[in-house]
Amino acid sequence: MTNHSLARPQSGRNVPDPHLGRYAVRTAGMTASEIRALFAVASRPEVVSLAGGMPNLAALPLQTLSAQVAQIIAEDGLTALQYASAHGLPLLRDQICDVMALEGINAHPDDVVVTVGSQMGLDLVTRLFCDPGDVVVAEGPSYVGALGSFAAYQAQVVHVAMDEHGLVPEGLRAALRRAGDAGQRVKLLYTIPNFHNPAGVTLAVERREEILEICRTFDVLVVEDNPYGLLGFDGQTYPALRSLDPDNVVYLGSFSKTFASGLRVGWVLAPHAVREKLVWAMESATLCPPTLNQMIVSRYLATQDWKGQIKAFQENYRERRDAMLSALEQYLPPGCTWTKPDGGFYVWVTVPEGVDTKAMLPRAVTARVAYASGTGFSTDGFGSRQMRLSYCYPPPERIREGVRRLAAVLESEMDLARTFGSVGSHRIPGPQTPWPDAVR
Amino acid sequence: MTNHSLARPQSGRNVPDPHLGRYAVRTAGMTASEIRALFAVASRPEVVSLAGGMPNLAALPLQTLSAQVAQIIAEDGLTALQYASAHGLPLLRDQICDVMALEGINAHPDDVVVTVGSQMGLDLVTRLFCDPGDVVVAEGPSYVGALGSFAAYQAQVVHVAMDEHGLVPEGLRAALRRAGDAGQRVKLLYTIPNFHNPAGVTLAVERREEILEICRTFDVLVVEDNPYGLLGFDGQTYPALRSLDPDNVVYLGSFSKTFASGLRVGWVLAPHAVREKLVWAMESATLCPPTLNQMIVSRYLATQDWKGQIKAFQENYRERRDAMLSALEQYLPPGCTWTKPDGGFYVWVTVPEGVDTKAMLPRAVTARVAYASGTGFSTDGFGSRQMRLSYCYPPPERIREGVRRLAAVLESEMDLARTFGSVGSHRIPGPQTPWPDAVR
Repeated sequence: MTNHSLARPQSGRNVPDPHLGRYAVRTAGMTASEIRALFAVASRPEVVSLAGGMPNLAALPLQTLSAQVAQIIAEDGLTALQYASAHGLPLLRDQICDVMALEGINAHPDDVVVTVGSQMGLDLVTRLFCDPGDVVVAEGPSYVGALGSFAAYQAQVVHVAMDEHGLVPEGLRAALRRAGDAGQRVKLLYTIPNFHNPAGVTLAVERREEILEICRTFDVLVVEDNPYGLLGFDGQTYPALRSLDPDNVVYLGSFSKTFASGLRVGWVLAPHAVREKLVWAMESATLCPPTLNQMIVSRYLATQDWKGQIKAFQENYRERRDAMLSALEQYLPPGCTWTKPDGGFYVWVTVPEGVDTKAMLPRAVTARVAYASGTGFSTDGFGSRQMRLSYCYPPPERIREGVRRLAAVLESEMDLARTFGSVGSHRIPGPQTPWPDAVR
Repeated sequence: MTNHSLARPQSGRNVPDPHLGRYAVRTAGMTASEIRALFAVASRPEVVSLAGGMPNLAALPLQTLSAQVAQIIAEDGLTALQYASAHGLPLLRDQICDVMALEGINAHPDDVVVTVGSQMGLDLVTRLFCDPGDVVVAEGPSYVGALGSFAAYQAQVVHVAMDEHGLVPEGLRAALRRAGDAGQRVKLLYTIPNFHNPAGVTLAVERREEILEICRTFDVLVVEDNPYGLLGFDGQTYPALRSLDPDNVVYLGSFSKTFASGLRVGWVLAPHAVREKLVWAMESATLCPPTLNQMIVSRYLATQDWKGQIKAFQENYRERRDAMLSALEQYLPPGCTWTKPDGGFYVWVTVPEGVDTKAMLPRAVTARVAYASGTGFSTDGFGSRQMRLSYCYPPPERIREGVRRLAAVLESEMDLARTFGSVGSHRIPGPQTPWPDAVR
């Protein structure tokens, strides 16, 4: 094989983009996400990365999976390596209904569409519903990948505050009223009810009916994104919004956190009419999801103790969550607050006034610890005093060491702030959706 | 496992869609593609399907692949089953440059973006360049999946006629001039230069520079879709448009026809600045392409005689092409004409005046043969006297039998037409881009 990287000249570097006048309007704000830039930096082995959201797959039965996949290709390869329907394999869609039943969802397999990760589900739902200028209401902060999809379809995001019980119904009602008064068309509520990314909180069960009622009243479709719902640390689950309001909720599911992210198998459960359009959108986006990957997930669900495997994941992540919370308690300077997740991957930390988490990040990486600074999770500038710490991937002792390093960086930032005032280079004025410091 | 299909009521069937007022404008023309509807009908075993474009994978070394994939998961499963970069695996991108070198392309691996099939590449390129109302110029007829992507971004398609040497330069120049005069903004030329789907023709080498020159003059970016380029029946290849004009061509490649469609691994080769935006678009669409699938393709390319395998595919498809052409010659009634592909999957047939291929299709399926009627391949109504016959999948004797059945249906349609006039129920007035009957 030729080494193209060395042998070939890199033409076109460092020259203005000749296509600049040709791009669609939607590309105007197109920049690499902060999270993505971090992945590169934080991948150095000496850095403890509390930045990424990579699941810890060490507990997977690789030898068994290896044998199963070998069998699929040897015995059924002409199917596994061939195109299939855009809708997804029927058997897998049926099994997905079993998975969703764990959270109280009673669904028909016809209404499930298999997607290439739930990110694609989110992208296609946005494609179906959002014209440029339409509003999507989302928690503030929200999942950075969702913000990217909304931007791609030129939807405006309006953030609504959470507290330790998740999205605040009064805040949602007020935001929808304001949007209506301003003549805006609110199409979707995008929400992650369970073990929120990045906030680490869960929507209280007693708020769920109210949230759904508000959305019905304001004629807003609910998009429920639930990748972490089965990763409650006490094995607890919460009733899916979809289970409470089948006709006004589009549900996004994923095997990335409960099985294997690299297979990119997710799904959408949608009201019937929406599902038909989703399949069309799926065809235009990628013809069909990879057949082999669907067969791997299906075989795994049919033959392995997948509920036991999820239990193992829960225990793994609980141990790491415990390590992080005790390290935060032990090391973080006074004035810092943080959420206490009972499932999922993330803790959301608020630091004292005067510290800018984005400005601090290069110094943290120099001190060999990485995190995701808060501003990447909002479209309104909120998050300069926040950061997301993920405990999903590193072993507990690395998590403790990472938090120890982070605490030292924070101490010296706070010293600087006390001496010279704010150390942020680009402080953003008041956030529109302040994160309540009370959440700890 | 619960049998959800039987146990659960199908709520919401046969009621008006309650979300009707909520959809984005782009969904207005959203209907299942004609091709898709056909797949369902034509999948009955007694029907000879000349409709689909499924590659024939029988020549693949399944046992070897099975062992390779098993090894990937057993030895490198924590990588294969994990998220990876949105850009694609570096080794695979390097190998893709080797593949493209066969058609004269000198590319840097940095400028390759791996996609979930080249359909996704097409969708993302359209996302980057097309605002609603922008014009895409494409051959008439054109690939139905491309038309779906253009519709999803509300781009208008202007078709330009082909002859037996592919896209006609004067037609392209005239179309671009007309669009300019009408104040339309033409963003892309979408073209399939080699073994066209559905037309079965190849753009003459001596036209390629001229086409590129016209596009530079009119400031139009060229999107070169090349899934079949390595499937020339004499092992011949043609210089890629990208090899002749690296700065103004976005190239779409695929392993679906040269290796395995069900893995959904394709790629885009783009000018450097465009490539950066493509990675961003990729992230918002699906985060990253499936890692395992990329490793399977990469291992295959590194260890197997992939060029020998492509040769085997060429021979397989040539044999089928020969069977189809000789059967058409033997059975089709006078007045029918067809293209004679020297590579790829498809023959494009024109039937005599008075026969409507779409109206005839149900009668053909009753006679146990299926094809793709011509109107699905254009946005301007062209194709009511055309059909696409694919010879890629069925064995030669089935192809001959299918053409024999088709000829009988055609004969009786032509009888009817002679007796009662046109038998089409929905004849569309004159096509804007007539398919030249001279191509045979």
